[in-house]
Amino acid sequence: MNKVLHLSDSIRAWIDTSGRNARLASKEIAQASTGTKNAALEAMAQRISREAQNILAANAKDLEAAHASGLSSALLDRLELTPDRVNAMAEGLTQISALPDPVGQIDDMNARPSGITVGRMRVPLGVIGIIYESRPNVTADAAGLCLKSGNAAILRGGSEALNSNQAISACLSLGLTDAGLSEYVIQVLSTTDREAVTAMLGSPEYIDVIVPRGGKRLIEKVSADARVPVIKHLDGNCHVYIDSDADIDKAVAVAFNAKCRRYGVCGAMETLLLDSANASNVLAQLMPKYREAGVDIRGCERTCELVPDCQAASEDDWRTEYLAPILAIRIVNGVDQAIDHIGRYGSGHTDAIVTNNLERSQQFVREVDSSSVMVNASTQFADGFEYGLGAEIGISTDRLHVRGPVGLEGLTIQKYVVFGDGTTRP
Amino acid sequence: MNKVLHLSDSIRAWIDTSGRNARLASKEIAQASTGTKNAALEAMAQRISREAQNILAANAKDLEAAHASGLSSALLDRLELTPDRVNAMAEGLTQISALPDPVGQIDDMNARPSGITVGRMRVPLGVIGIIYESRPNVTADAAGLCLKSGNAAILRGGSEALNSNQAISACLSLGLTDAGLSEYVIQVLSTTDREAVTAMLGSPEYIDVIVPRGGKRLIEKVSADARVPVIKHLDGNCHVYIDSDADIDKAVAVAFNAKCRRYGVCGAMETLLLDSANASNVLAQLMPKYREAGVDIRGCERTCELVPDCQAASEDDWRTEYLAPILAIRIVNGVDQAIDHIGRYGSGHTDAIVTNNLERSQQFVREVDSSSVMVNASTQFADGFEYGLGAEIGISTDRLHVRGPVGLEGLTIQKYVVFGDGTTRP
Repeated sequence: MNKVLHLSDSIRAWIDTSGRNARLASKEIAQASTGTKNAALEAMAQRISREAQNILAANAKDLEAAHASGLSSALLDRLELTPDRVNAMAEGLTQISALPDPVGQIDDMNARPSGITVGRMRVPLGVIGIIYESRPNVTADAAGLCLKSGNAAILRGGSEALNSNQAISACLSLGLTDAGLSEYVIQVLSTTDREAVTAMLGSPEYIDVIVPRGGKRLIEKVSADARVPVIKHLDGNCHVYIDSDADIDKAVAVAFNAKCRRYGVCGAMETLLLDSANASNVLAQLMPKYREAGVDIRGCERTCELVPDCQAASEDDWRTEYLAPILAIRIVNGVDQAIDHIGRYGSGHTDAIVTNNLERSQQFVREVDSSSVMVNASTQFADGFEYGLGAEIGISTDRLHVRGPVGLEGLTIQKYVVFGDGTTRP
Repeated sequence: MNKVLHLSDSIRAWIDTSGRNARLASKEIAQASTGTKNAALEAMAQRISREAQNILAANAKDLEAAHASGLSSALLDRLELTPDRVNAMAEGLTQISALPDPVGQIDDMNARPSGITVGRMRVPLGVIGIIYESRPNVTADAAGLCLKSGNAAILRGGSEALNSNQAISACLSLGLTDAGLSEYVIQVLSTTDREAVTAMLGSPEYIDVIVPRGGKRLIEKVSADARVPVIKHLDGNCHVYIDSDADIDKAVAVAFNAKCRRYGVCGAMETLLLDSANASNVLAQLMPKYREAGVDIRGCERTCELVPDCQAASEDDWRTEYLAPILAIRIVNGVDQAIDHIGRYGSGHTDAIVTNNLERSQQFVREVDSSSVMVNASTQFADGFEYGLGAEIGISTDRLHVRGPVGLEGLTIQKYVVFGDGTTRP
């Protein structure tokens, strides 16, 4: 709880300048019309398409340095841009321009007995700080979502993507000025100094909220150090519970899709919970599919009796987000034990029940305290686009402000608007 | 950004015990039916009514000690309970029981092309910490709002109100157990150790959000030290701007009510902004009323030319929340200057325009960045009850989670609920 932020002179000067510019730009973009914001998004998209060769060249430099420094192949894949990925960035900005503008929307207008009429108007949050890792496409995506929701943004990407991000940033700046907006609406850091992150996390006077995007370590570090509010996305340790009243075909389809559609996404199932009543029936149909896909099973004692080649699950397995073709399986006695297991080991991301029993489906929805709770659907649906938000800047496992996929609305807040006719309060 | 919380052993033991009990109780109250929660609120109200004599006797002890220690008369007034105030506490709990339960409400159910149906369900925040000052009635009010919204609460009142709060707390605990709920749903601190506040502010593992209620100093201290998210209410430096197109009678009514209805409330106007076009007409009708009420005027140069006995306003006056019969007046040239003044000196609480000009009313609503923006209505309407929220736990001048008066809904969050029919993601 040490309030004094110790920064080098150069970083202090940087955050003071960038912060003030962002504050000024946030007032401008908050008042910009939907037309102007869409024009800027379209212009950014065009600039990116036109500068694709430069962006790819900058990315090649980053890739070369990353190879030389021995970055893992997974990180190299995230860092790499291809002509298709550059197109997708431009396309993403165009799609954001087509989304409805949340700013200015007025809801819940009600006449009150006193004679006033009260409603709530959606307004931007102000300045949003984005701290992310190696994927350069986040630069364009996050910038687009902040801009459309009327916010200014300060973006700090991974140092390994510096050249790529600077090339993209140049396109974003030109797009802003093409539309007559301040280039300070979107500022992408041109330094790889780690102190810059410290400065962002410690500057509530300049930044209203921080959205970290990346692995667990990054999020934990950001959360622990931030004096600015953080919209967090921790693990996705997701569960599917197959109830005694489940339709076996649907259960098998959901459980297979939840694990195997993609292993590396946060909505992937990591633990399968089976009711003891029909566990052997479910496993008889499901295991051949998992085996074909090459999924390793870590099971509880009862599971291991039913599944050959099952490795005994440790306490750690119940807590692990594998993001890999590994699945923990536990056999439980009914929905209460399933809910208890999820409450104890889950991460509050996304959990599903498969059942035809209405009462138990309602109990599961009510009692499972996760940002998404599903009935008879694959946990892999946990995604802003699938939910109809148009796009997402991340998935919040927090309990304040926004929970679940965060779209444009999650980057705004409602203020009250009150209309009278010279009305006074008695 | 020092993450280590240094606490004495006894306070560490206290927060660990209370925190764990609150977490367990929060799971219970989150699942409690509306009927059970209402029964608890009614039982608490009855216990308070029945124990009125004991509560008043405990309050008399606090008052005696406060007199002896030379507490100011304003603080003594806040600390004092009368039979009427005790009745009002019980009545308040009964009123909260009559409000609609926000928990479990499902909004925005939409079918998606993939076959899933997605909606949002309102759920409690978890454990709420309330840190407040001398008013003992906050104990019952805040407890009631937390309970109805399905949250557990840890309350820490002012040390000068310890006996009163303990007497009220006993009634709340009995009311909870009368309704079959855990007494740990509402915990009122029985220590006056200041370290307990430090422990609450530093324990995100036990407390999900802190709501401080009290003066500017308390809020600033809480905000600076907290590692738990805080719903803040800073100053209410509220403005009324009277436009050149205002109806003079309505302008006078609004400006008089905004200042003089009650001086000590956060929605009281502190600075009056007048358009130069009709400033002298407005002042000619308004000043006799202010003079009769005994309001002191601190004016800009132009105001002082029009108002006898006007004291020249300093830069400080524009920033001051007087909470007293003092008013700063500035004459501006049009709505842009008024909006600039509010942006520079205002506190983002509540600001109003009086005008018949539609375009300027819309500009004011859009561009004034306050938690409540009003047209032709008195700023003294800034209140959860007046807005139809039923009751309020405070007024947020924050930009995250909730802005403006905070009622039951502000103590909840929406999670996503997804329904399919064995639906898998392609």
